[in-house]
Amino acid sequence: MKREKGKLIVISGPSGAGKSTVVFKAIEGRDDVCFSISATTRKPRPGEVDGREYFFVEPDRFTEMVANGELLEHAEYVANRYGTPRAYVEEKLAEGMNVLLDIEVQGARQVNEKMPDAIKIFIVPPSLEELRRRLEGRGTDTARAIEARLIRARQEFEEADFYDYIIVNDDADKAAQELAAIILAEHCRAADHMDLLKQV
Amino acid sequence: MKREKGKLIVISGPSGAGKSTVVFKAIEGRDDVCFSISATTRKPRPGEVDGREYFFVEPDRFTEMVANGELLEHAEYVANRYGTPRAYVEEKLAEGMNVLLDIEVQGARQVNEKMPDAIKIFIVPPSLEELRRRLEGRGTDTARAIEARLIRARQEFEEADFYDYIIVNDDADKAAQELAAIILAEHCRAADHMDLLKQV
Repeated sequence: MKREKGKLIVISGPSGAGKSTVVFKAIEGRDDVCFSISATTRKPRPGEVDGREYFFVEPDRFTEMVANGELLEHAEYVANRYGTPRAYVEEKLAEGMNVLLDIEVQGARQVNEKMPDAIKIFIVPPSLEELRRRLEGRGTDTARAIEARLIRARQEFEEADFYDYIIVNDDADKAAQELAAIILAEHCRAADHMDLLKQV
Repeated sequence: MKREKGKLIVISGPSGAGKSTVVFKAIEGRDDVCFSISATTRKPRPGEVDGREYFFVEPDRFTEMVANGELLEHAEYVANRYGTPRAYVEEKLAEGMNVLLDIEVQGARQVNEKMPDAIKIFIVPPSLEELRRRLEGRGTDTARAIEARLIRARQEFEEADFYDYIIVNDDADKAAQELAAIILAEHCRAADHMDLLKQV
């Protein structure tokens, strides 16, 4: 049976919302979901393989990719550039894979301009107090960094209505179940099945 | 915890698509889903209880309900009138129940005019050939009645793009899983959670 085209699933959410845990629980054991792979100008670290962790490219090539519209979104962090190659995403979607893209709100908006059919999901903690507790519990940020993250989270919440779905991560198993349900439900969209019905 | 408002779920599909089986499998053991109860002018049969199988009403009262806009949809079969009382549906939704309405395409359109937020799901057999096999297998229809059902099914397929979702029932367990996923996913709609985020 020909596999149906995959869906591009854009996932955002504040640091500390538990995105990675939820995503990994949702896709565990599935062979129809993969992550998008970013292009970056950063040098590979020991053990990193081109085309696995990242597509490693020279700065000139990255600039060319931007100019040619080869990236669904791009941004700069700590003097390195990162972007999402459209060709890789399209190839995986055509193979029937659902492609996950874990990305910040600004990047999600860029992707949406180029691929408006993307399913946009925002994962949030149940409250900012809970987010504070989680960030403090991780022990990796200074008090000042935590305040900055909380301010940022509150700003991102204001933009949440850009997303199609909001998953409130008060329980990672429940949240993972919701993420899986969203993917399954989106594959039942009427628009995707009208061709089938018109053939019968 | 306050229970979130329920969703009205309108389900249509040709006779023989296996709607009932799929619905019962999907809601088995759940206490957050109920069926809508129709008002009818038909006389109660032995064992039927007013407000359980149907709301039994006199023809004049039914006419009044239509005139007052108390019904989400209504139709006539075999000289009896049937309709969906809006008040009952609204009450259950407010209690946090997801309300299922198994109804034909014309009724679904009427409901949609009054409650455009309803989730509209069309359940179909994998093909018209398979539908024919199922109808023949039931042995309850004459050959002529089966042809009429098939013609009607083909006509309904043409209207399927009115629905939000199409579930292809080639496997009842899979189809039930899809129905449950749609209900869960719809409860994650961003619009339903923006209030929560604006409070934090």
